[in-house]
Amino acid sequence: MTVRVGVVGGGQLARMMIAPAVELGIELCVLAEEEGMSASLAATAVGDYRDAATVLAFAKTVDVVTFDHEHVPQDVLAQLIADGVRVHPGPEALAIAQDKLVMRARLQELGMPQPDWAAVVDVDELQAFIDQHGGRAVVKTPRGGYDGKGVRVVSAATEAQDWFATLAEDARGGALLAEELVDFSRELAQQVARRPSGEMRAYPVVETVQRGGVCAEVLAPAPRAGERLSEVAREIGATIAEGLGVTGMLAVELFETTDERLLVNELAMRPHNSGHWSQDGAVTSQFEQHLRAVADLPLGDPSPRVPWTVMINILGGPAEGGLADRFAAAMAAHPAAKIHTYGKSPRPGRKVGHVTVAGDDLDDVTYEARAAASHFVD
Amino acid sequence: MTVRVGVVGGGQLARMMIAPAVELGIELCVLAEEEGMSASLAATAVGDYRDAATVLAFAKTVDVVTFDHEHVPQDVLAQLIADGVRVHPGPEALAIAQDKLVMRARLQELGMPQPDWAAVVDVDELQAFIDQHGGRAVVKTPRGGYDGKGVRVVSAATEAQDWFATLAEDARGGALLAEELVDFSRELAQQVARRPSGEMRAYPVVETVQRGGVCAEVLAPAPRAGERLSEVAREIGATIAEGLGVTGMLAVELFETTDERLLVNELAMRPHNSGHWSQDGAVTSQFEQHLRAVADLPLGDPSPRVPWTVMINILGGPAEGGLADRFAAAMAAHPAAKIHTYGKSPRPGRKVGHVTVAGDDLDDVTYEARAAASHFVD
Repeated sequence: MTVRVGVVGGGQLARMMIAPAVELGIELCVLAEEEGMSASLAATAVGDYRDAATVLAFAKTVDVVTFDHEHVPQDVLAQLIADGVRVHPGPEALAIAQDKLVMRARLQELGMPQPDWAAVVDVDELQAFIDQHGGRAVVKTPRGGYDGKGVRVVSAATEAQDWFATLAEDARGGALLAEELVDFSRELAQQVARRPSGEMRAYPVVETVQRGGVCAEVLAPAPRAGERLSEVAREIGATIAEGLGVTGMLAVELFETTDERLLVNELAMRPHNSGHWSQDGAVTSQFEQHLRAVADLPLGDPSPRVPWTVMINILGGPAEGGLADRFAAAMAAHPAAKIHTYGKSPRPGRKVGHVTVAGDDLDDVTYEARAAASHFVD
Repeated sequence: MTVRVGVVGGGQLARMMIAPAVELGIELCVLAEEEGMSASLAATAVGDYRDAATVLAFAKTVDVVTFDHEHVPQDVLAQLIADGVRVHPGPEALAIAQDKLVMRARLQELGMPQPDWAAVVDVDELQAFIDQHGGRAVVKTPRGGYDGKGVRVVSAATEAQDWFATLAEDARGGALLAEELVDFSRELAQQVARRPSGEMRAYPVVETVQRGGVCAEVLAPAPRAGERLSEVAREIGATIAEGLGVTGMLAVELFETTDERLLVNELAMRPHNSGHWSQDGAVTSQFEQHLRAVADLPLGDPSPRVPWTVMINILGGPAEGGLADRFAAAMAAHPAAKIHTYGKSPRPGRKVGHVTVAGDDLDDVTYEARAAASHFVD
């Protein structure tokens, strides 16, 4: 009997599950937000993921439900569980990914290293936090932020005045998250897959390069990552996956500080941009691994197939003409580059695809990947 | 603008084009023989590929037409061309793959090394051929054979009496193909991709192991293939691709004789079982390469990513219970094995999937691949 995995959300993460699903013989069913989404080839339903009846009807057609994003409301998730639907990751884990204040509190309980933080309910509290942390802080809206949205570096609390005003209008009230501005030398990401049965597999820690709050490049594995650093990152990933009961893929974004500590920045409970390299560079891609994990099948080997893989995001794409116009030139000049597209219309800064190159020499691989990706932007 | 590639035939070769098509952003459209075929996820039409109106209507929905098999009749192909449809490989090339007598004659014109052969119209002619070749010969029906069907090794011409009788009933008449029984040490396969613009890329020559006329294992690259052998194989592949005007993937099945010559056995003008290893072992898989070639996009790097890749076909599958029941056990014991399924119901000897393992040591890789595949058969 074929396993049917249902994915709520039709974005590129759902799209990139199609290839491994076809090869593994898993029937992938996608609940897409609208027609023509990235994952439309696998769309079996179109509707609003915030509507319980829509999601429940979709869930009846599959064996297990998973997600392209973390935005499905808790009341919808609760109804799925009440109806006996297998949901991975489950509502309790997702609640932590959905609210950064909840996440900070739970990570603290787990003893995870993280930046100093506080829940601040007004300008005065934020200013006090800023004053205690050298005159600067990172302020985040606890919910709904992604790719740098909902994140500000401030040196005066009044710079977050508008967010406090929005909070005041919200019947639920609430607080903003204030975090110490970490003095980091670079950013890393640790991915772990975990099955409902508890089996876990850790990917090698990778280096991520952000530009304007958006992931621009990933180097896999992270260069100059010694055994000790790799082990600490792996332990952080495993402790969080187990501690929060994550099922499926977990990504832990990390700061490597100038004094060589690792601090947890963000979590994602789904395949993640920092793991796209694995499609071409690992024995088991994060998309295949996520499907195996949520279907409770034995996990695959996450080892790299080649010494180095570099991934570059295609952001925005050319101002005029489609991406397709740039394909031939990129392919002709870079026959070893793997080009992945998301079927999305380009607009400035939007992630519309990525390029990976894998090989033996990091400098060569990085150069090739950047050169291939450069064909897609002006 | 997205390129739409139409594939006539909904078998596993069309299915395995889905993954690279999704990643490259190529819209794959399949004309399937019936509902529920291997490639049904990409099926946009269902109908008889021998019916010109059906194929023409399908062709109108795509930019270029290619094939899952070589059985589309020449009169249907002629109508596509007359209608201005881009068809790759084209009718002239396909005519050679469709008739083994035509193939032998054309290869002879190209000066390709091949077994002694003759067109034999009756038992007497076949017996004469047998007598001239040490008392044995291979007899083949020129059309419609595959996976060992339509092939017999005979020591008396009367063993092909029934085939001659069928020929006599055929209004078109015709002949059988008689071939010398080659004294070979092993079988090899050479794949070449060729674009309409003429660009070509050769894969490394691989060793194929046949059992009962069906491909059982492929070792890539072929072990003990020195530079000279690899070069001769590559030249044979390139000469045939160019000489016959093949577009898309070409596979040349070769005998390596005990006196170290290479002789052409069979041709296939499509992705081929001998190239499935490339999905997990090469920078560019044969399925991605075929799509690039027929869409006239620059070809990808066909180099191996790892020193050795071994592919084992899953033939038939377990007598009771679906293949899925065997998945968990195979995955648990062999986390580095890549399992590919075709969505076909198992019956004895039917190709229903394959397993690949890639790595640094050929013995280890072969052992792992065989052990993983063994879970799927009784």
